[in-house]
Amino acid sequence: MTVRTDQLIAAPVARLIEEFAKLPGIGPKTASRLTFYLLRAEPKQALALAQAILDVKEQVGYCRRCFNITVGELCAICLDPSRDQTKICVVEEPLDVLAIERTGAYRGLYHVLHGHIAPLEGIYREDLKIEELLARVRSEPVQEVILATNPNTEGEATAFLLLRDLAPLGVRVTRPARGLPTGGDLEWADPETLGSAFEGRREL
Amino acid sequence: MTVRTDQLIAAPVARLIEEFAKLPGIGPKTASRLTFYLLRAEPKQALALAQAILDVKEQVGYCRRCFNITVGELCAICLDPSRDQTKICVVEEPLDVLAIERTGAYRGLYHVLHGHIAPLEGIYREDLKIEELLARVRSEPVQEVILATNPNTEGEATAFLLLRDLAPLGVRVTRPARGLPTGGDLEWADPETLGSAFEGRREL
Repeated sequence: MTVRTDQLIAAPVARLIEEFAKLPGIGPKTASRLTFYLLRAEPKQALALAQAILDVKEQVGYCRRCFNITVGELCAICLDPSRDQTKICVVEEPLDVLAIERTGAYRGLYHVLHGHIAPLEGIYREDLKIEELLARVRSEPVQEVILATNPNTEGEATAFLLLRDLAPLGVRVTRPARGLPTGGDLEWADPETLGSAFEGRREL
Repeated sequence: MTVRTDQLIAAPVARLIEEFAKLPGIGPKTASRLTFYLLRAEPKQALALAQAILDVKEQVGYCRRCFNITVGELCAICLDPSRDQTKICVVEEPLDVLAIERTGAYRGLYHVLHGHIAPLEGIYREDLKIEELLARVRSEPVQEVILATNPNTEGEATAFLLLRDLAPLGVRVTRPARGLPTGGDLEWADPETLGSAFEGRREL
């Protein structure tokens, strides 16, 4: 015999479990653990978490030049005059910028596409920051574009599409060496692997 | 070569990663995944999560009779006149109430201790809702107290301490049967479990 327990869970508790369960990788069991943890936690801690979520949505936006995350108009990298202005490294996500920065192997600029081409998932060319990239290559003193999309099927497809767009613009187009483990996610690569991949990048 | 990337992560983003990482079972990698997910999510979703956290802390408290979670003064179970008022089931946490309710095997009341005795962790008798339980047994028409603390060392210790306190009050004190888990394999049962299953065997 089983019994419905929905009406026994106070509505705000049920709602928080539901909201947690919407996050990626968080199932209903973990969502309910987190909820009951917060119920018991210091009000200060729960408040800090809620406020941090609100702050991120209110204060953080995308750099209007490279679409990396930033608090102001331009990100810290675009604002840094010591960065090599002749190189743009194209990545799928803001987390990829952090991964590459961690290697210390690259001192140029970035351009965040915010995704990869995946027609089966309904993600097309116009959903990515591709036109914005081409506009930068036309107007900025760019000599090399490094296509650091993920070394998997979608990332490769996106890179080849970009190569076709960039070829007529007369810039060097490179891709990090296949030191990266095929099929993996760039974000999870260790700094050494990612660093040597950058050093060994080759003409496409 | 590695490079500090702290200054590259916008402060509100770093703060949210930090707050997520304080939750149980969420490491820094997951915390950063959740943060970047929320960054990209619809503002509505992030807002709903933040609001749900605030609501839980503002609106949800503990039942002043049994210390189960509740929105009002008394929880849904304490308010239900059809529940058997002569039985109190003592559990460690509010989640245990839900687990027992899901079985449909129990129609009495509850009392949530909010923990177990664990002197090594600095949790003593006075940190639990024990005096409140004894006051209820003295003033309510209770005939049986079921000690459903966890079947582990701390839960057993807590149950034996409660037994000592309850014995002089003239109520029946019981503990859920120990035995083989339904659907399990006898072959894989640990000696303790199998031993208690044999001790507690019943006529068919």
